[in-house]
Amino acid sequence: MGQRVVIVGAGFGGQHAYHELAKAGYDVTLVDRHPYTTFQPLLYQVATGGLNPGDIAFPLRRFVSRSKGRTKFRRATVTGIDAENKRVLTNRGAPIEYDTLVLAQGAGPNFFNIPGAHENARTIYSRAEALQVRDLLFSGLEQMTTEPNHGQHFTVLVVGGGATGVEMAGTLAEMKSEAIPVVYPELSQDSLRVILAEMADTLLAPFEPRLQRYTLHELRKRGVDVRLGTAVKEVRPDSVDLSDGSTLGVDLVIWASGVGAHPEVSEWGVPQGKGGRIEVEPDLRVKGHRDMWAIGDCAVEPDSPLPQLAQPAMQMGTHVGKQIIAADRGEETTPFAYDDKGTMATIGRNAAVVQFPNGRTVTGFAAWALWVGVHLATLLGGRNRLQAMVNTAFRYFAWPQSATNIVGDAVAEDDSAVDPDSGRPRQPHQAE
Amino acid sequence: MGQRVVIVGAGFGGQHAYHELAKAGYDVTLVDRHPYTTFQPLLYQVATGGLNPGDIAFPLRRFVSRSKGRTKFRRATVTGIDAENKRVLTNRGAPIEYDTLVLAQGAGPNFFNIPGAHENARTIYSRAEALQVRDLLFSGLEQMTTEPNHGQHFTVLVVGGGATGVEMAGTLAEMKSEAIPVVYPELSQDSLRVILAEMADTLLAPFEPRLQRYTLHELRKRGVDVRLGTAVKEVRPDSVDLSDGSTLGVDLVIWASGVGAHPEVSEWGVPQGKGGRIEVEPDLRVKGHRDMWAIGDCAVEPDSPLPQLAQPAMQMGTHVGKQIIAADRGEETTPFAYDDKGTMATIGRNAAVVQFPNGRTVTGFAAWALWVGVHLATLLGGRNRLQAMVNTAFRYFAWPQSATNIVGDAVAEDDSAVDPDSGRPRQPHQAE
Repeated sequence: MGQRVVIVGAGFGGQHAYHELAKAGYDVTLVDRHPYTTFQPLLYQVATGGLNPGDIAFPLRRFVSRSKGRTKFRRATVTGIDAENKRVLTNRGAPIEYDTLVLAQGAGPNFFNIPGAHENARTIYSRAEALQVRDLLFSGLEQMTTEPNHGQHFTVLVVGGGATGVEMAGTLAEMKSEAIPVVYPELSQDSLRVILAEMADTLLAPFEPRLQRYTLHELRKRGVDVRLGTAVKEVRPDSVDLSDGSTLGVDLVIWASGVGAHPEVSEWGVPQGKGGRIEVEPDLRVKGHRDMWAIGDCAVEPDSPLPQLAQPAMQMGTHVGKQIIAADRGEETTPFAYDDKGTMATIGRNAAVVQFPNGRTVTGFAAWALWVGVHLATLLGGRNRLQAMVNTAFRYFAWPQSATNIVGDAVAEDDSAVDPDSGRPRQPHQAE
Repeated sequence: MGQRVVIVGAGFGGQHAYHELAKAGYDVTLVDRHPYTTFQPLLYQVATGGLNPGDIAFPLRRFVSRSKGRTKFRRATVTGIDAENKRVLTNRGAPIEYDTLVLAQGAGPNFFNIPGAHENARTIYSRAEALQVRDLLFSGLEQMTTEPNHGQHFTVLVVGGGATGVEMAGTLAEMKSEAIPVVYPELSQDSLRVILAEMADTLLAPFEPRLQRYTLHELRKRGVDVRLGTAVKEVRPDSVDLSDGSTLGVDLVIWASGVGAHPEVSEWGVPQGKGGRIEVEPDLRVKGHRDMWAIGDCAVEPDSPLPQLAQPAMQMGTHVGKQIIAADRGEETTPFAYDDKGTMATIGRNAAVVQFPNGRTVTGFAAWALWVGVHLATLLGGRNRLQAMVNTAFRYFAWPQSATNIVGDAVAEDDSAVDPDSGRPRQPHQAE
């Protein structure tokens, strides 16, 4: 109870660990580089203009203020770990001392060293990245409206046929067929081309073949040019080389193919395994560090690696909270066991796939309704949940009129605000 | 009916002119530098974290898509007017030809040539500016939490005791008393100092003395240091000289003192009057230009200048729409007559002032409820109206827990997106 616990990262894993420890009265400091936490599973909706960024963000100071205990929030980026003196070094304020450290900083994209991918492809793992994709997409469409004689197509290549790639491609296909005729009447539907490239011979590799076939059929029906068995060899600013020897002209490449560790973790002095993830013992302790734990996307137990999804992260967070309390009481820790409650992916409106661990599968509207329900219920906090519901209800009933209802955000968000490094204001653009 | 009408600016005035002309089947092009329109009267709420920017924005392509007629949206900044060839020059795409031109580009701040004001004071006339104020404010509070030994106060000086200044100061005072103890428990309430400086001897100059006294009393009760008869002589990055000879240390200066024309208007070849506003005839035609009209904050009829508020702008927009149709039919145009329906200003939760043209005044909760109702009803579009209601309901019932519910937007909005000049992406910050 006298323990000071520092949790690095306030995603699903960090939040769940925080809950356990705050409830038990620990002195917890939650550290995150952003003042908010982002609901990552819906970032693709921000990237395609379906949700406002505020709809899927929750302020961490408010999150922390809900606990009665001795908890704190520190907005800072971790720059190193001084394990000997048990201190976390950050870019802001004094080092933070800990008795126990929980690493839950998540993961970033993995470009697999494919030339040009890091420089020229966009990712949607953070809110800023999702906003960038959105702005590029809508700026591209807007630009085409004033240049009738060239730039006839805006081609989006989605790389990777996992859940994120399928969701992205499916939503873009809906924009093409439903939003463009209404919102960009100057353009033809064909102005937006959506291509999905997947190296393997199926989409959604971990799912049942029936669901894979359904997904492929639905995407193609919606106008996505799905190319299976097709890897990306090189990415340039306006073209991509594919493994079939062809070169594809592209306006936007969205990289939805694999996650990896944040590069700075290699300087933290922790053991790293596959994809740079931090190697943990079965009880989720970092190997070789008795007072350090790692959970979620950033952690891997080498003998039983788990999918990098919200569900395992949340369960690991809760588990680690309980283990820290147990260890503190001198009790034995227990190994983590993942309770798979099922996996889902959405293709578009009225179309999704759900797979339960008992082998049962669901597709179509029922799966989509399930997907909507689970995601709304998991969204943090009453206000966000309500707003997402308002949004979702409107998208459902008022489509296509509201298809691009938040495109408006694009400019204001790029012509704001405070420079994050210096803390000094940027000069705003001229008043309108 | 064969007329091509170009409307520059999609604020209250431009929207209302558009409605009249679109309804009558005209070929209307609405031009705005942003893809969205902003509900300006609530920008102070964005600046203080009470509303998401998306709550008070409406996408102009959606706005235009609702009309059945031959209407278009062009996202562009006007760079000049070629009156001889009847073309509007823009920064994007070919010049836009017109038969009739409506100027409705609004106004910006007026710094009255006070040294340093333009460089060092912030304004809240655009969404980008409001976001910048918000980010500076919350970054300042956040910074204080990690620096206990200096920067004990964050001092905000609001310059100008009109409706905007009163609203800003009142909302900041609420943050101080209600949000800080909950959301920034590390800080004392006194960490935020709010000063309102007004040159005149009263606040809210155009209102009844009873309402002026009420407003002064309410602001002081809420902890605002109101200084009447105090002008600002010079603004520096961290201090301000006042007319009483004193120098005040400041962290943020919000300029809420008067509006003026956008400087570029002086190159458009139109007659300019007081504050750079475009001089119009009684029917709102630009003086000396038979095919050009001006409405809203950017226009002034020298013999009967109107307040630069939403209500006159909306009425002028409707009037100009009707006059263009009348003139097109060879009918006589009629002079514009402003129908004043009353004026209101809000001080904070449960406190506002309303003044009707018959001399009746309302204060307190009734005035505040009236203010909420009028603003919600005027917000464009179903979705925005619903979201603002959700927000407002939560602020009202869940305060203070939701006091800073959108602070989370601050970073994502400053580390996005597309560079507005080049159209090229900025590099996003590292993924979290």
